[in-house]
Amino acid sequence: MTSLPSKPARVSRVEMTEIVMPEDTNPFGHIFGGRVMTLIDKAAAIAAMRHARSNVVTASVDRLVFRAPVRLGQILRVYAAVNAAFSTSMEVGVKVLSEDPHSGRQAHCCSAYVTMVALDRSGVPAHVAAIRPAGATERRRLRAAAARRRSRLRERRLRERRRAD
Amino acid sequence: MTSLPSKPARVSRVEMTEIVMPEDTNPFGHIFGGRVMTLIDKAAAIAAMRHARSNVVTASVDRLVFRAPVRLGQILRVYAAVNAAFSTSMEVGVKVLSEDPHSGRQAHCCSAYVTMVALDRSGVPAHVAAIRPAGATERRRLRAAAARRRSRLRERRLRERRRAD
Amino acid sequence: MTSLPSKPARVSRVEMTEIVMPEDTNPFGHIFGGRVMTLIDKAAAIAAMRHARSNVVTASVDRLVFRAPVRLGQILRVYAAVNAAFSTSMEVGVKVLSEDPHSGRQAHCCSAYVTMVALDRSGVPAHVAAIRPAGATERRRLRAAAARRRSRLRERRLRERRRAD
Amino acid sequence: MTSLPSKPARVSRVEMTEIVMPEDTNPFGHIFGGRVMTLIDKAAAIAAMRHARSNVVTASVDRLVFRAPVRLGQILRVYAAVNAAFSTSMEVGVKVLSEDPHSGRQAHCCSAYVTMVALDRSGVPAHVAAIRPAGATERRRLRAAAARRRSRLRERRLRERRRAD
Amino acid sequence: MTSLPSKPARVSRVEMTEIVMPEDTNPFGHIFGGRVMTLIDKAAAIAAMRHARSNVVTASVDRLVFRAPVRLGQILRVYAAVNAAFSTSMEVGVKVLSEDPHSGRQAHCCSAYVTMVALDRSGVPAHVAAIRPAGATERRRLRAAAARRRSRLRERRLRERRRAD
Amino acid sequence: MTSLPSKPARVSRVEMTEIVMPEDTNPFGHIFGGRVMTLIDKAAAIAAMRHARSNVVTASVDRLVFRAPVRLGQILRVYAAVNAAFSTSMEVGVKVLSEDPHSGRQAHCCSAYVTMVALDRSGVPAHVAAIRPAGATERRRLRAAAARRRSRLRERRLRERRRAD
Repeated sequence: MTSLPSKPARVSRVEMTEIVMPEDTNPFGHIFGGRVMTLIDKAAAIAAMRHARSNVVTASVDRLVFRAPVRLGQILRVYAAVNAAFSTSMEVGVKVLSEDPHSGRQAHCCSAYVTMVALDRSGVPAHVAAIRPAGATERRRLRAAAARRRSRLRERRLRERRRAD
Repeated sequence: MTSLPSKPARVSRVEMTEIVMPEDTNPFGHIFGGRVMTLIDKAAAIAAMRHARSNVVTASVDRLVFRAPVRLGQILRVYAAVNAAFSTSMEVGVKVLSEDPHSGRQAHCCSAYVTMVALDRSGVPAHVAAIRPAGATERRRLRAAAARRRSRLRERRLRERRRAD
Repeated sequence: MTSLPSKPARVSRVEMTEIVMPEDTNPFGHIFGGRVMTLIDKAAAIAAMRHARSNVVTASVDRLVFRAPVRLGQILRVYAAVNAAFSTSMEVGVKVLSEDPHSGRQAHCCSAYVTMVALDRSGVPAHVAAIRPAGATERRRLRAAAARRRSRLRERRLRERRRAD
Repeated sequence: MTSLPSKPARVSRVEMTEIVMPEDTNPFGHIFGGRVMTLIDKAAAIAAMRHARSNVVTASVDRLVFRAPVRLGQILRVYAAVNAAFSTSMEVGVKVLSEDPHSGRQAHCCSAYVTMVALDRSGVPAHVAAIRPAGATERRRLRAAAARRRSRLRERRLRERRRAD
Repeated sequence: MTSLPSKPARVSRVEMTEIVMPEDTNPFGHIFGGRVMTLIDKAAAIAAMRHARSNVVTASVDRLVFRAPVRLGQILRVYAAVNAAFSTSMEVGVKVLSEDPHSGRQAHCCSAYVTMVALDRSGVPAHVAAIRPAGATERRRLRAAAARRRSRLRERRLRERRRAD
Repeated sequence: MTSLPSKPARVSRVEMTEIVMPEDTNPFGHIFGGRVMTLIDKAAAIAAMRHARSNVVTASVDRLVFRAPVRLGQILRVYAAVNAAFSTSMEVGVKVLSEDPHSGRQAHCCSAYVTMVALDRSGVPAHVAAIRPAGATERRRLRAAAARRRSRLRERRLRERRRAD
C-alpha cells in the first residue's frame, strides 16, 4: 500500500446553520439533546467525507457536555473540521453555538470529538490521507487529537481485558 | 420615526450545509424542487432575522431556475445574505451549490432573490436598518437589488390595474 | 419521431388538501414560505406526471408572491393543472387557497407557474403530448402559457449573453 | 338548546393527493398500513371540521381492509365526506385509491368509516348540524351510516356488560 | 408442503415507548388518531416479523375505539404480540396505554387487532408456524382470535356476494 | 428542604422498539450515528421523567462507542433505567441492541450513560429522590454510577482550572 499525500484541514471544514423548530423541542420549549447530537453527527460525517472522499460511518463520540440551554426559535451554528487522520479513522472536532435571533447574543452550546471511519465501496475500512496542519492552531489540534486517540485505545484495551477476565 | 443606523451586509451572512437524503428525493433519486426551495426559504429567513433582529415573513421569491440536477447522497451548500433593505422589507440573495462527496466536484444548482418583511412583536411590518455596503461587490448588489425592486413594484401596479379593470 | 396525440388538460388536474401543523410554522405561528413551496412543487409534479405518464423534474418556478398570511391550524387547498406542453416541458399552473376551519373563510395565498421536464427511464428529456384545451378558459391559459414561455426564453438568452461577454 | 339548521354533505367534501415516498414504505417498497391510516384520519378530520366548523377528535375507525398493495412512487387519492351527523358525532366516509403514474391505472386501496366528535373551545363535545342529503346516493349513505351507528352502540353495550360481569 | 413447528407467543412480544411531541398533536394539543394508528401498525408489523421471520404486510385492522384522550407531553406505551397464526396470516393484538409523566397515572387509550400477512422474498404470501400458547391467557387469546377470524371471513363472503349481485 | 423518600430503580425502566427506515440511513444503508443518539436521548429522558416525575433536560452523554453496524430494515431495541440519583441529577444507563428480523440474531450496538437534570415548573433544577437498589446488579450499578460521577466532577474542575489560567 502506498501512502496517500497529506491534505490540509481546511478542505474538510463544514458550517451548518439551523433554526430550532417546534419538532426539535420538548413540550416545555427546550431543545432535545438528541436533536443537537443529530446535527453534530451530520456535520462530522460531511467533514469526514470531504477529507476522505469516500463513505464514512460513525465509530464513537467522546463525552458530550451541554453547557447552555437552547430554546425554540433560536439559531444553531455548527462548525466541524477534521483534526487528525489515523490509518482508516478521523477525529472530527465539532462546535455548536446558539444565537438569539432578536439580541444576536451567542452562547457555547457544546463541543464534541467524533471518530469517523472511512469505508470503500464494498463497506471495508479504507485508508485516508494524513492531515497537513496549517498554522499553530491546527498543529495544536493535531497533537491534542493524537493524545485523545492514545487515551481511547488505552480505555479500549482495559475494557477488553475486563471482558476477557 | 427616527431612522435606524445602517448595518454592514456581512452581519446577515448565512452558510448552510446539507446532505441529500432518501426522503429528499423522488423514487428515481433526483432531489425535489420543493426541498431546495425549503432550504432557500430557511436560509433567507435566518439572514433577514440577523439583519432585522426581529421576526420575518416571506413576501415573495423571484423566478427560480434549476440549472444542475442534484442527486441522493450529494452535499448541498447554501449561502445567503441581505443585498438591500427598503423600509420594512429586505431582498436576500441566496445561492445553492451541490457537491459530490466522492469527487469533490461542485455545480451551481440555483440562485434566488427572496423578499422578506420584518414584523414587530404584534405581527405588524417594522422598519429595518439600511444596508451599508462594504466593497464593490456589495455596492453592485445593492444597486441591482434596488433595480429589481423597482421592476417588482411596476409589475405589482400592472397586476392591480388589470384586476381593477 | 412521430408526434404524440394531444391530451385534454383535465387529465392532469390535481387537488390537494393539507392542514397547517406545528412543524409547518415558525415559532410565531406563521407558515414557512418553504412549506407552501414544497406543496406547490409536489402538486405540479403530480399534474405533470399525469399528463406525461413519465418521471418529471422541476426546471423552474416563476416569481411567487405570498398575498395572504397562513396560520397554524388553517386548511390549505392546492389546485394544479398543466396549462401547456412544449416539446419536453410543461407549464403547470398552481393555485393555493387557505381556509379557516372555524369560519370557513377562504383567502388566496398564492399562485405559481412551475415548469416541469418529462424524463424517460434513462433520465433523458422525453417528448410529451400537446394540451388540447376544452373551453375558453383553457384556451386562454394555453395562450398565456405560450407567451410566458417566450418571455422565459428571451430572459435566458439575455442571461447567457451577459455571461458570454 | 336550539337545534342547528341542517347542512348539505358537499360542504364537508375533501380531496387529497399524495405521492408514496421512501419514508412511507418498508424496506421492500410496500406502503405501511399506518401511513394510509394517517391519511384517512387527516382527511376525515378536515371533512368533520368543515361540517362542524369546530375542533374535532377521532372517536373510532371501523374495520379497515387493505385490498390492493400500494408501492413506492404511486399516487394516492383520498376522498372524504360526512355521511351523517348525530348529536355531537359525525360518521365520515373515506375512500383511498392508488394510481400508477406511468400507466394511469387506478386501484381501490381501502375504504373507512371514521367517527369524529366535535369539541367546543373548552374541549367539551359540542352539538353539530344534521346532514341534509342531496340525491339518492347521499340519502343511501345517511341511512347506512345510521344503521352502522346502531350496530356500534349495540357492540358498545355488549362490551360494557361483559366488563360489568 | 411440510408444516412448520409451532412457536411460543412470547417470541413475538413487542414493547414500544413514545413521548407525544408537538408534531403528533393538532393545534389544540390532542394527539391525532392517525399517529396512534401508525404506532399500532408498526408494533404489529414488528411482532409479526418476529413470529414469521419474514417480511409482512398489513391486511386489515379491526374496529378501533379511542377510549381516553392523549395529550402533548404524555408517554405512550404500546404492547403487541401474535395471538394466533393461520396459514399465511397472523392476528396481532395491540394495546396502547397513555401515562402522564408528572403524576404517573396511566389510562387505556385503545386496543387493536391487526391482521398481518407473511411474504416471502418474491412478495408471495408464505406459510407461518402456528402459535403454541403457554398458560390460560394465551389459550384464551388463541380461541378468541380464531372466533374473530371466522367472523371476518363471514363478513368478507357477504361483501363479495353483495358485489356479485 | 426535606429529603424525598427513595424509589426503586424499576419504576424508571423504559423499553423502546424501532425499525430502521430509509430516512434513518445514509445512501449506503447504514444507520446514522445521530439517529441512534436520538433514540438514546429519548429513552433516557423518559426514564428520568419516570423517576423524577418532572421535566428533565440532558446535561451530558458519556463517551459512546458504536460496536456493531446497524442496517436498513433491522429492529432496534433500546433499554434504559436510572442507575443513580444525586441531588438534582440522574445517571441513566441505556443499552441499544439490533435484531435482524429474518434470522432473529441480536447484536450489541452500543451503551450509553446519560446525565439528566430534573427541572421544576419554572425551569429551575429540582431535587429528586435517591435510587433504592433491589438486588446485587442494581447495587453494583449504583456504586459504578457514583464512581463515574466523581470522575466527571474531577474532569470538570480540571477544565475550569485550565480556562481560569
